[in-house]
Amino acid sequence: MRKLLRVTAPVDLGAIDPRSTPGLPTAERDGQHRKSWARGQVELVGDELGQQQEMLFAMAKAGSERPAHRVLLVLQAMDCGGKDGTIKRVAGAMNPLGLHIRSFGPPSAEELRHDFLWRIRRALPPAGYVGMFNRSHYEDVLIARVGSLVPEATWRARYDEINSFERELTEDGVTLVKVMLHISYAEQGERLLERLTDPRKHWKYNPSDIEARARWDDYQAAYAEALSRCGTDAAPWFVVPADRKWYRDWAVAHLLRETFDTLDLGYPPADFDVAHERERLRSGGAGADGTPEMNGR
Amino acid sequence: MRKLLRVTAPVDLGAIDPRSTPGLPTAERDGQHRKSWARGQVELVGDELGQQQEMLFAMAKAGSERPAHRVLLVLQAMDCGGKDGTIKRVAGAMNPLGLHIRSFGPPSAEELRHDFLWRIRRALPPAGYVGMFNRSHYEDVLIARVGSLVPEATWRARYDEINSFERELTEDGVTLVKVMLHISYAEQGERLLERLTDPRKHWKYNPSDIEARARWDDYQAAYAEALSRCGTDAAPWFVVPADRKWYRDWAVAHLLRETFDTLDLGYPPADFDVAHERERLRSGGAGADGTPEMNGR
Repeated sequence: MRKLLRVTAPVDLGAIDPRSTPGLPTAERDGQHRKSWARGQVELVGDELGQQQEMLFAMAKAGSERPAHRVLLVLQAMDCGGKDGTIKRVAGAMNPLGLHIRSFGPPSAEELRHDFLWRIRRALPPAGYVGMFNRSHYEDVLIARVGSLVPEATWRARYDEINSFERELTEDGVTLVKVMLHISYAEQGERLLERLTDPRKHWKYNPSDIEARARWDDYQAAYAEALSRCGTDAAPWFVVPADRKWYRDWAVAHLLRETFDTLDLGYPPADFDVAHERERLRSGGAGADGTPEMNGR
Repeated sequence: MRKLLRVTAPVDLGAIDPRSTPGLPTAERDGQHRKSWARGQVELVGDELGQQQEMLFAMAKAGSERPAHRVLLVLQAMDCGGKDGTIKRVAGAMNPLGLHIRSFGPPSAEELRHDFLWRIRRALPPAGYVGMFNRSHYEDVLIARVGSLVPEATWRARYDEINSFERELTEDGVTLVKVMLHISYAEQGERLLERLTDPRKHWKYNPSDIEARARWDDYQAAYAEALSRCGTDAAPWFVVPADRKWYRDWAVAHLLRETFDTLDLGYPPADFDVAHERERLRSGGAGADGTPEMNGR
C-alpha cells in the first residue's frame, strides 16, 4: 500500500479517482460483503498494530533506542473528507493507551502570537506513542493560502520550513505517515447535505463550509502543491481515495501496519535477573530492612 | 452498578471479595460463555458510550452548557490490578477522538517543584472530552504514605486538599468516577509471575514491585483510608472486584454508562438557518463577492 498510494511531484489529484480502491484483493473488489470484510480486516490489523504499539512503548520505556521511535499519522482532507471517521475506526481498533490524538482547529490568539509550527511541536507524541494529527501544519499552506490569511510571501516560505521541520522530526526518531483523504466534489455535497438533514449531525456543520466548497478548485491546487513540494522520501505523502469509507479505513490501517513493519520492533530484554526475581516473588519479598515481611496471606 | 459498587466510610476492603461479580445477571453468573458474553457487552456499551461522547462533544462545541460537562474516570489499583487492561478494553470500545487518557508515574523533577495537584490540573480533560487517569493524585496518599516519601503531616493534610480540589472540579462541570480495581494478594502473585515468565511481559516488571507487595497490608490500609475520607456524594469511590478481568471491564463500562445517563445529554440545536443552508448548498455556494462560483463539477 505504501508503494501504491504514495504520490510524488508533480501531483495530479484529478488523475486519482476518489471511488477507486487500489490494493484491494481482487476477490473482494466486487464482493457483496466487501464492506463488512473491510471492517473485519481493520479490526484484525488493529490487533496487530496494538502489539506493535506495545513494543514501541516497551522499547521507549527501556530506553533501548536512541532516539526513541515514534510514529505520527498526519491526516488532511477537505471538509467531510472523513478524518474523524478514520480516527474513530482505525485508532478505535488500536490500543487507546498508546495513542496521542490531537485535533487542530483555527489557531487561538495565543497560537497566533507564535510561528505556525509552535502549536504543532507542543502536540508531538512522546517517545513510545503513536500520534495522530487531525489536520496539521499543512493547514498553514492550505486554508492560509486559499483564504489569504497571510501574505503570499509568508505561505510560500512555509513549504521549505515544513520540509526542514519534518527532517528534524525524522532525525529525532519520528516516522511520519502523511495521508490526504481524497474525496470528490459530489461526495462532499452528499455528506454536507446529510449534516443538514440529520439533526444529530447539525453540530458538525458550519456555514463557512459552503464558502470553502465554492473554492474547491483552489483547494485542490493548494493540496497538489503541498503534496508535490513536501512529499519526501523521509516523510512521504500518500493519497487515499476516500469516497468509500470502508476502503479508506482499510487503506489507512494497512499504511500504518506497513510503516510499523519498517521499524523492526521487538521487546526489550529484561534489565533485571529474572531467576532472582522469581525467587524473591516466591519467598514473599523483603522488607526495607532486608528481611522477608510476612503478612499472613 | 453505581449503587452496588459504591463504598462509604468506613471502607473495609477485606469484606469485598476480589473474585465476586456484583450486578452480573443471574443467567451469566455460572454461564460457560460468560467471558465472551461480557466482552460483547463491553463492545455494546462502548458503542452507546460513543454516542454519549459525541453529544458531550457537540454540546461543548456549541457552548450550550456552562460550565461544559466533562467526565473523568480515575483508576487506581495495586500493581497488576488491571488499570492498563481496563483502559485498553473499555476505552478501546469508545471513540478515541473524544478521549483524554493520562498516565501518572513517579513525579518528574519539575513536578516535584510544584504542589502535588499541579500535574493533575494540567492533565484534566478539555470541555467535551472524557478523561481517564491511569493512577492519579491518590498516589500522593498511597505510595507517598506507605513509602514515607513525604512527612506524615504532609500526606495527612492531603485528604482535605483532595476533597477541596474535587469539589472545585465538580463545580467546574467535571463528573468524577473514581474506581479502585480490587485484586487479591494471590492474584497479584500470579500476574507478577506471568510477567517474569513471558519475555514479552518482562518490560512491565519492576523489581520494586516486590517491595510494594511486601507492604500489601499497609497499602490496603492506605487505600481504605483514602476511599473512606475522599468518597463524597459529588465524587464517590467505587470498588470493582478485579480478579476476573472480564467482570472488571464489564463493571467499569457500566459505571461509565450509568454516569453518562445522569448527565441527560442531547444534541444541540442548529445555530444556523437549516433551510437557508440547504439552499446555499444546492446552488453551489457563493464566492467572496457574493456571486456563485461555478467550477464545473
